[in-house]
Amino acid sequence: MGISRILIANRGEIALRIHRAAHEMGIETVAVHSTADAEAMHVRLADHAVCIGPPSATESYLNTAAIISAAEITDADAIHPGYGFMSENAQFADIVEAHGIKWIGPKPEHIRTMGDKVQAKKTAGALGLPLVPGSDGAVSDFDEMRRIAEEIGFPVIAKAAAGGGGRGMKVIPSADKLESLVRQAMNEAKSAFGDDTMYLEKYLGNPRHIEFQVFGDGNGNAIHLGERDCSLQRRHQKVFEEAPSPVITPEERDRMGSLVANAMADMGYRGAGTIEFLWENGEFYFIEMNTRLQVEHPVTEAITGMDLVREQIRIADGKPLSVTQEDLQFHGHAIECRINAEDPFTFAPSPGKVTYYHQAGGMHVRVDSGLYAGYTIPPYYDSMIAKLIVYGRTREGCLMRLRRALEEMVIEGVKTSIPLHQELIHQPDIISGDYTIKWLEEWLEKRAAEAEG
Amino acid sequence: MGISRILIANRGEIALRIHRAAHEMGIETVAVHSTADAEAMHVRLADHAVCIGPPSATESYLNTAAIISAAEITDADAIHPGYGFMSENAQFADIVEAHGIKWIGPKPEHIRTMGDKVQAKKTAGALGLPLVPGSDGAVSDFDEMRRIAEEIGFPVIAKAAAGGGGRGMKVIPSADKLESLVRQAMNEAKSAFGDDTMYLEKYLGNPRHIEFQVFGDGNGNAIHLGERDCSLQRRHQKVFEEAPSPVITPEERDRMGSLVANAMADMGYRGAGTIEFLWENGEFYFIEMNTRLQVEHPVTEAITGMDLVREQIRIADGKPLSVTQEDLQFHGHAIECRINAEDPFTFAPSPGKVTYYHQAGGMHVRVDSGLYAGYTIPPYYDSMIAKLIVYGRTREGCLMRLRRALEEMVIEGVKTSIPLHQELIHQPDIISGDYTIKWLEEWLEKRAAEAEG
Repeated sequence: MGISRILIANRGEIALRIHRAAHEMGIETVAVHSTADAEAMHVRLADHAVCIGPPSATESYLNTAAIISAAEITDADAIHPGYGFMSENAQFADIVEAHGIKWIGPKPEHIRTMGDKVQAKKTAGALGLPLVPGSDGAVSDFDEMRRIAEEIGFPVIAKAAAGGGGRGMKVIPSADKLESLVRQAMNEAKSAFGDDTMYLEKYLGNPRHIEFQVFGDGNGNAIHLGERDCSLQRRHQKVFEEAPSPVITPEERDRMGSLVANAMADMGYRGAGTIEFLWENGEFYFIEMNTRLQVEHPVTEAITGMDLVREQIRIADGKPLSVTQEDLQFHGHAIECRINAEDPFTFAPSPGKVTYYHQAGGMHVRVDSGLYAGYTIPPYYDSMIAKLIVYGRTREGCLMRLRRALEEMVIEGVKTSIPLHQELIHQPDIISGDYTIKWLEEWLEKRAAEAEG
Repeated sequence: MGISRILIANRGEIALRIHRAAHEMGIETVAVHSTADAEAMHVRLADHAVCIGPPSATESYLNTAAIISAAEITDADAIHPGYGFMSENAQFADIVEAHGIKWIGPKPEHIRTMGDKVQAKKTAGALGLPLVPGSDGAVSDFDEMRRIAEEIGFPVIAKAAAGGGGRGMKVIPSADKLESLVRQAMNEAKSAFGDDTMYLEKYLGNPRHIEFQVFGDGNGNAIHLGERDCSLQRRHQKVFEEAPSPVITPEERDRMGSLVANAMADMGYRGAGTIEFLWENGEFYFIEMNTRLQVEHPVTEAITGMDLVREQIRIADGKPLSVTQEDLQFHGHAIECRINAEDPFTFAPSPGKVTYYHQAGGMHVRVDSGLYAGYTIPPYYDSMIAKLIVYGRTREGCLMRLRRALEEMVIEGVKTSIPLHQELIHQPDIISGDYTIKWLEEWLEKRAAEAEG
């Protein structure tokens, strides 16, 4: 008779996010938590709470037996895994379903396929998504290499098949440099891996990270919810995300959106997913698919008005998609800042007791956070403690609102990345939207050098 | 060259609201405050702050000379009066403009006209707005009274022209009771006021309070932003407001909306205004017009996406309306709960130190409040300390979200009306939208009787 009690197999802001969506649907919640999270806000607000183990995630949030037992004890009829932890564990999804509990996530076979990078690329290619062009496997003849490179266009990158960590890898700017550079790469590969087998790929020097949100009903119907631009990254961790992307036109959105939605429909994909691309000079290149909710989903919620967690729950409950592609509209602009408990200069984690907490408020300002004054941030988990999401009719208006919202946020007792965001939103490249996946690290290096100098 | 520094002639949440809109437009703010409000949040956040007097509002927030001096000292080029205090003081508006400072409000003559009840009704009638029908002034002949009553329809109410406080007033259910009841009223009037002159009006037994938000550019262009239903009132104070009204159809909204927008266009009205009606059995009856921003404006912002304070500032700056009636769309449903520092049962004010404060968060939840932990609510002013505004695609979804948001709000150290709202949203009449301006007081009486019994 439909889902009536959801076990939330996660912690932190995403656990609270799921609790909120469930309660707004009249569904009870079960919080499972480690001993370190007994005082977490979602644990306090949930209808039921079960301690499933010690702080170590392996023994609690990754402990299949404990989570399944908690679901059985509390009579939960569905499990939402959030992101991270169990969310892309196909075996766990299998076990959940084998116990007659609804899995609020994609079909386990799709989690499995997309979790394997090689399989994922093959599947994406077969579904018609654009891949990074290159040689079809190893290539050893220089004329053949030149032919391939001309075809995909310079610059290309030669990579050792056995490679890793940047070794045996050379960027080739033009045909006349090809042979000498590939020979250097082969020598490096030979001495590093004992194998000089090489392949070629188009070189993306300075791409943006652009991802599409998709939803499928599992029965061959799927929609896309537009893109998010998550190019601002530090060590592959997203810091600041926005929707729509400053560089994508409505026509490109429609074209790529249809492509990904059709791919999901062909797969029979169920629930929420994100298809990640690198983007350079107007071209998209598939990198991977995440078969789960993403941290940055609220920016999509802001510009579509759709509650993505509610949609996930509805679909897991066997309901159809709540909106058609034609009815879905994009309005305005949204930005999310991830606020971490860390030093805004050294990025050293800063767990500990929050002595004062004040959320920003007012029109079109959303805060997703389990923080409260008196809460102690445990040192065992991810350092993200809050997400500030701001909406505006225009990108400029959104940035201005973000500025004033950041002025209002107060977190005392621990160091946070709020000062970093306050600096970032005054950078001309951020204001103009002119940044790529390399921008943040380069800017941080410059900032560090200036601070020392 | 446009407004660059706004003096905010108000306090509390509305002062913060104006500060936020100004900062999001890149405009500096000047806070003026009484000695009791030196630690208020908007004073802390404003670019400049001037103390204008002691706690007594007469000597501070109503002190024309002090406010004008503060504007001159700080070089403010505009004044926003918020609501209450100076907001409907035409003389103050005149003085502001005479000092070459932009008045973020309607033309003084319109404030004056609409501030006089008799003038306001005449103006509304002349502009084609529906009034409460009745005799055109005094009537003494019983046959004439019966003719009028038949024309406007029973029940009617006979009122003493000299009356007040409910004396010399009788509700007449039907023609056969008219003469005897009017005679009773006349006798009452005669002995109470020494004057038995009577007039007749249509009797509204159990109406709803429905008001339309309007905006004019001052040059003959005006739009309406739909209605708000503010029927939940206690002692004429609104407690809970929603948009759209549960009883208004899109056709009625269009029809009445056009009527009020055209009236404002004809007047050459400038800025924000609210036209208040009583509504019964599908008919609207003009009561008054407020020539200022209203407390409950955020519910209109939520369903239109328009920032009303930004729009006020734009118009005061001579800009055109930012949207046409055709482009303005209504989406979803919004509810505002006014949170007061008062006992939720006795309604006795509860000023004092806020020892703990936690705002509700998450999707489509907005809090407008100057509260923070450690802030002391002064006893001198209005008891409203926060507004919780929640949006949902449907009224049902909005109510569910409001429920969970109220679960999350924590204010400690003072008593608040949060428990009252938590009770209200579980009442079947509130859930069904079936309430009138009498509902809340009747329900409170029942509640009090049950608590005693």
